[in-house]
Amino acid sequence: MAIGLRKAGFASELTGVDLNPQNASKALELGLVDKIESEDKALSSADVVIIAIPVSALCALLPSVLDLIGKHTVVIDAGSTKTQISKAVSGHERRSQFVAAHPLAGTENSGPEAALDGLFIGKTIIICEQDKSSPEALTVAGNIFKALEMKTIFMEADEHDKHVAYVSHLSHVSSFLLGQTVLDIEKDEKNIFDLASTGFASTVRLAKSSPDMWAPIFEQNVEYLSQALLEYIMHLQKFHYHLMKHDTRELHRIMSRANEIRRVLDGIELKNVKTEKQK
Amino acid sequence: MAIGLRKAGFASELTGVDLNPQNASKALELGLVDKIESEDKALSSADVVIIAIPVSALCALLPSVLDLIGKHTVVIDAGSTKTQISKAVSGHERRSQFVAAHPLAGTENSGPEAALDGLFIGKTIIICEQDKSSPEALTVAGNIFKALEMKTIFMEADEHDKHVAYVSHLSHVSSFLLGQTVLDIEKDEKNIFDLASTGFASTVRLAKSSPDMWAPIFEQNVEYLSQALLEYIMHLQKFHYHLMKHDTRELHRIMSRANEIRRVLDGIELKNVKTEKQK
Repeated sequence: MAIGLRKAGFASELTGVDLNPQNASKALELGLVDKIESEDKALSSADVVIIAIPVSALCALLPSVLDLIGKHTVVIDAGSTKTQISKAVSGHERRSQFVAAHPLAGTENSGPEAALDGLFIGKTIIICEQDKSSPEALTVAGNIFKALEMKTIFMEADEHDKHVAYVSHLSHVSSFLLGQTVLDIEKDEKNIFDLASTGFASTVRLAKSSPDMWAPIFEQNVEYLSQALLEYIMHLQKFHYHLMKHDTRELHRIMSRANEIRRVLDGIELKNVKTEKQK
Repeated sequence: MAIGLRKAGFASELTGVDLNPQNASKALELGLVDKIESEDKALSSADVVIIAIPVSALCALLPSVLDLIGKHTVVIDAGSTKTQISKAVSGHERRSQFVAAHPLAGTENSGPEAALDGLFIGKTIIICEQDKSSPEALTVAGNIFKALEMKTIFMEADEHDKHVAYVSHLSHVSSFLLGQTVLDIEKDEKNIFDLASTGFASTVRLAKSSPDMWAPIFEQNVEYLSQALLEYIMHLQKFHYHLMKHDTRELHRIMSRANEIRRVLDGIELKNVKTEKQK
């Protein structure tokens, strides 16, 4: 976001705050930020605060962040859950200065060196509980997302958490456990290396993601993630049942239905192509 | 393969055989092949026959292909299973002219328009039952795979089927059913489109694959795929158990272990980078 906002001319002075001193100095070295400051100092002077930390820390920290900011400062988060975060600041006297946001963009990598120029272009950002944010805060947030060339949509926090359980959190769980299954059995790693076709590599890519980031997300979205996971397990078990019955016609029917995802995803791909051209 | 073998100067005359007349004329139109012929005619005059069809059809067709070829013709398959295919030609008087091969390369797309220049560069091809092929046939096959810039490894058919069950077939099943789960719940497709981050898109990519190709593969590899699938389901259920117990530490531990896949896959990525440079 720092790269994109500087490039777009939106941010003229970027201050980094990080618990980890190595990450902080790396961010400075890479030119992502202009300086590193303590939380208190940075918060008291910032026009805009963007917080991208694990969602458990976010819930704990957000009220004190709102305590420390100025009267016109806007705070935006980037957490992958929204119900708990909304609850954490519900009733805070500066709730209206906060915009609850979730950018649907990222990679399996973490830390300042994982920052990617153009990561957010053409991607979706979801704003939740927009009626709890002031029009001024929404305007600032809207300008930021426009500068990053993102598409903004609005949702209720509960609706958000349900939907991302299926399209984001479940695919991470499925990938983490696919990785574990293959690692468990293929004790001889050389064979994974030799046999891993590109199909496997793309399916298991998310298994490289940070547990520090994902464990709190799963914890905060237990209810919907559990529903999604049980549904997924049920489908796998049905597939296994038909497989053991040698019912190849039924397997074929199941896969043909799953093929429908192509039509749905083609929208995404077309969008990406378009974005590529716009650059 | 036609594109690669022509480019490398290995193939001077390429003849296409396809049950589907639209695919045949499209292959001709795209210049993938120089002419289209009937199976009988093409087989009786070919020096090398490469068969890439669903593995069920392969088992049914392969003996009659060996019946029709000349004394010096080499036949190579590209099937994703090897035990059933090996059995289908076991004891055939021309078994030694056949090389059982599995290129670990492909995309989720099918048909002549899905042909990709350079698809096989740097990828692995597995040859099974090499002792059943003549040294001459192995030399021809080896030259073909070298012309395509592939890395050849050798395995027993049973060992092959076990390993690909885990690293290829399981990831296809996991992807097909992830696609189905999300489609089932997100009845409003607009939401999938809006929420599908790139992570979801890569995890579900294989769900676009052809059921005609994959149903017979799963059918032929029931035993090992069933083992892999049960192991995967068990890991998902364990994860669900810890999720419901709010045992975030254990979830974190599971994901940290799955992160090991990064180290294993880095080999692949490094290999791809190297290949890119070699081009």
